[in-house]
Amino acid sequence: MNKTDRPLILVTNDDGIFAPGIQTLAEEMKAFGEVLVVAPDKPQSAMGHAITIHNFLRLRKVEFMDGVRAFSCTGTPVDCVKLAVYHIIKGRPALLVSGINHGSNLSINVLYSGTMSAAVEGALEGIPSIGFSLMEYGLEASFEHTRPVVRSVTANVLGQGLGKGCCLNVNIPAAKQGPLKGIRACRQALGSWEDAVETRKDPAGHEYHWLKGEFTAKDPGEDTDVWATAHGYASMVPIQFDMTAHHEVGVINSWNNAL
Amino acid sequence: MNKTDRPLILVTNDDGIFAPGIQTLAEEMKAFGEVLVVAPDKPQSAMGHAITIHNFLRLRKVEFMDGVRAFSCTGTPVDCVKLAVYHIIKGRPALLVSGINHGSNLSINVLYSGTMSAAVEGALEGIPSIGFSLMEYGLEASFEHTRPVVRSVTANVLGQGLGKGCCLNVNIPAAKQGPLKGIRACRQALGSWEDAVETRKDPAGHEYHWLKGEFTAKDPGEDTDVWATAHGYASMVPIQFDMTAHHEVGVINSWNNAL
Repeated sequence: MNKTDRPLILVTNDDGIFAPGIQTLAEEMKAFGEVLVVAPDKPQSAMGHAITIHNFLRLRKVEFMDGVRAFSCTGTPVDCVKLAVYHIIKGRPALLVSGINHGSNLSINVLYSGTMSAAVEGALEGIPSIGFSLMEYGLEASFEHTRPVVRSVTANVLGQGLGKGCCLNVNIPAAKQGPLKGIRACRQALGSWEDAVETRKDPAGHEYHWLKGEFTAKDPGEDTDVWATAHGYASMVPIQFDMTAHHEVGVINSWNNAL
Repeated sequence: MNKTDRPLILVTNDDGIFAPGIQTLAEEMKAFGEVLVVAPDKPQSAMGHAITIHNFLRLRKVEFMDGVRAFSCTGTPVDCVKLAVYHIIKGRPALLVSGINHGSNLSINVLYSGTMSAAVEGALEGIPSIGFSLMEYGLEASFEHTRPVVRSVTANVLGQGLGKGCCLNVNIPAAKQGPLKGIRACRQALGSWEDAVETRKDPAGHEYHWLKGEFTAKDPGEDTDVWATAHGYASMVPIQFDMTAHHEVGVINSWNNAL
């Protein structure tokens, strides 16, 4: 295949362009097409769907990997997607992949995740998009066992397409959980953060606060991403961006809504 | 009613604690209960569901309004909700209201909106929550005509409750559009941002980039928030946080997902 005939694949993440996870992802993508990396210049975890509107953005061409064009960006993961599409490519890539995130994005964490917000932004732009997360936080985590998952999901999305307005949220158990049994399509589990605030005093005696929390699954269903990953499977949840609670529209229309 | 028997109402926003919209909202809430304001110390528009995990947060008690306890916070709207619930109140308020945002949060803007992310965070915490937005961006915009809408929706939510896991996204047309005809329950319209990047050069000759864009409605349905607000109604969309595209789960389960 002529190099220019190969599909263009946009790679981004939220842990920053120098995180190991994005290296693995870009390496795997080279087998599928021409790879362009546009990723944050520093960690942007938990940035959700934030975009930068009160400040400008910078892009910097960086050395990343043989045969891969790469730019670091001063903004959020969603900023990276917008700059890639509207400034660098000036068009839509054939595929957008985000990750591989250092840490789980199961259940409601899709709302907080910069990794997944980049994929949702891809879906909003009509680009087939996948977010990959490894359920291990350390930067020293091994990504080797994630490669077959990345290859399988990518081949399926490029070969079969994704429903209009959908992207995928893929979570992969840590290597120490043992060999993977397969990949399962799931729904997003119900769960919540049992949050806490840790309050400390600075040397001058003034209080400051750290957010901390623990994720609690509240959904024993065996069709969820939490169940699948706890049972040795990689999970794959199709995500869409219509947040309407359609079943509630009629209920609230029955209120007295006169002014 | 004894002051301490009144329901506790948490008020936040994303335009910052000194924006006019939050003043109007807090004033109206005083008729419904005991008001606590916890809002960002600076504008946090377009922050989506971002939370602060790589830095600490500060809270500062501020003079806000007679009879209202108020704190400014160095973090995002979602940070404000977490600090209010887990540090200040150490419990759940009876109601959370966010806004009144200076600018529209129709359609897919619910994803980018800090105002609505605060309301979604409330829903995740099991708190009945409402985000209010005025479809006019200027800080000099008049909020007088929004008061009956705020009162009506608040009375309905406190009186009738909201479905489990749901919050409301309320958008109110600008005063210059003429008198409001009423409030309509709607679904989130399909739409997209036609984005663009404006590239400039700094005095040293280096490029920098501004995101800019124009929202384009793509959904002629007469049951949407875009339609209602264009036809003289305030719109009210019930929002939930399960982003699963349930109709796609079966489709992707039919792929070859062996490893």
